[in-house]
Amino acid sequence: MDQNLQGWFTERSPEWPGEAFSLKVKNKLLQKQSKFQNIEIFESTNHGKVLVLDGAIQFTERDEASYQEMITFLPLNAHPNPRKVLVVGGGDGGVVRELARHPAVEEVVQCEIDEEVIEACKTHVPSMGCGFSNPKLTLHTGDGAKFLEETQEKFDIIITDASDPVVLDGTDEGTKDGPAVSLFNNEYYTKMKNRLAEGGILCSQGENMWLDAEMVVTLVRGCRKVFPVVEYAYTCTPTYTAGQIGFILCATNPATNLKEPVREWDQRTAAEMGLKYYNANVHRAAFALPTFMLQHID
Amino acid sequence: MDQNLQGWFTERSPEWPGEAFSLKVKNKLLQKQSKFQNIEIFESTNHGKVLVLDGAIQFTERDEASYQEMITFLPLNAHPNPRKVLVVGGGDGGVVRELARHPAVEEVVQCEIDEEVIEACKTHVPSMGCGFSNPKLTLHTGDGAKFLEETQEKFDIIITDASDPVVLDGTDEGTKDGPAVSLFNNEYYTKMKNRLAEGGILCSQGENMWLDAEMVVTLVRGCRKVFPVVEYAYTCTPTYTAGQIGFILCATNPATNLKEPVREWDQRTAAEMGLKYYNANVHRAAFALPTFMLQHID
Repeated sequence: MDQNLQGWFTERSPEWPGEAFSLKVKNKLLQKQSKFQNIEIFESTNHGKVLVLDGAIQFTERDEASYQEMITFLPLNAHPNPRKVLVVGGGDGGVVRELARHPAVEEVVQCEIDEEVIEACKTHVPSMGCGFSNPKLTLHTGDGAKFLEETQEKFDIIITDASDPVVLDGTDEGTKDGPAVSLFNNEYYTKMKNRLAEGGILCSQGENMWLDAEMVVTLVRGCRKVFPVVEYAYTCTPTYTAGQIGFILCATNPATNLKEPVREWDQRTAAEMGLKYYNANVHRAAFALPTFMLQHID
Repeated sequence: MDQNLQGWFTERSPEWPGEAFSLKVKNKLLQKQSKFQNIEIFESTNHGKVLVLDGAIQFTERDEASYQEMITFLPLNAHPNPRKVLVVGGGDGGVVRELARHPAVEEVVQCEIDEEVIEACKTHVPSMGCGFSNPKLTLHTGDGAKFLEETQEKFDIIITDASDPVVLDGTDEGTKDGPAVSLFNNEYYTKMKNRLAEGGILCSQGENMWLDAEMVVTLVRGCRKVFPVVEYAYTCTPTYTAGQIGFILCATNPATNLKEPVREWDQRTAAEMGLKYYNANVHRAAFALPTFMLQHID
């Protein structure tokens, strides 16, 4: 029953007890401790390059499109004119790479807390780090919640591409608050609302309904006190724990229907844009919650 | 990087190289070799009881509803009057359990190749094995493809709940054809067509688009030569490899729209029926394929 997984990376956490996911390592590219977290990049045998922060997989090149495209295009295609976009987090470059594909986007501002993640992805994973050469991008480093307090700018879209709020502390099975903890509470959602332009929409990494439905429901209920339109959606990313990850989407305009894209690309256009995962049907489907989740969330 | 996974069950296969999924074992309940395959049942620490055939996870109690309900209700709710149903495989009892919930079903016939799987689930996993006390059920043991040749009966629905065609052979990383191999080819689909009543619909376990898009496309293209309506759908089951599994659905009537359920239950009715996963929106969403899969399949 026991197997030898030497030479594999294994992801385990008390946040999802009793299960573990492993990827075979071909070549270790980086392991370092930044001011904020442990950063690890390796080349896997079958899933391309992999970024791990504090022991948790952030992306594999093989399936990252299912996350990066969805967290980006769900809010952008629910908005008639998403000209100015703020990205909080997203230090791997995936979201700003996706934003470069969208015809409506004129200006991108990003605030990532850990510049060493940016440098690591630019150096070791050009397929992701290429996002930082987006000519429309203004990049800041610092805490996203603080940035929202200090900026005077307004945005059509705010995307929060955060790691999990609670992370491994590096001891045997212990956890601690991670660098993204300030992005998972009602105060942060109120700060975002204050920086959204008229008709603005936000989309945040929203955790997993199979692993922590309670936390998702708490976040969604909090958002409903701040925004007239709040939805929970999800995408299927095989190498994330439980094979999927959720998003919380909020709109400032009560007439916004987040579930129905306002623009639709045919298959040829999608291919020309370089899309691998997102399309209008997948957009609509992302909001179809299973019965157990409807029973929690309604 | 390496972790101690002693006391865990780990699923690996050359069919999905470079990744492994592990569940922590609380209590081993059964391990035996039947005439057809290696059967293993254990109680996990966090996912309930788990059935493993030839090294591959068949279900965990925690998330099995996402598979059992979908393979059953997708075809049944695309059919106006699914009175008579044939189940090929499904030896764990999950599909026949779901069929007992459906108001339209009058008669269920099942043909499972391995009676030791049936006995194991009846003895050790009553939450699944309870399906066999469905009073509408007539149970046969034997090869499903052969059963289809020999029976004179016609069915409104045929569900093929098979394990994977290729399985571990018990040596280090070797594989062989499994007991379900006869259920993954065009001849089998033609045999099913011959046993479908007018307006009949079939739904088969259809492998995983992330792991083997080629095989899925080959099956779908083969079906298109036999049936006027063929669709590929999928459900998200966290403990299956890559977190999801596909279905191939075929209809004999060219006017059938498999994507649109002909009956819809409100949330209260769904709860009374004991549904945990399936609902009409999830039905529709199951057919929304990502762009990369559309590019393969169209």
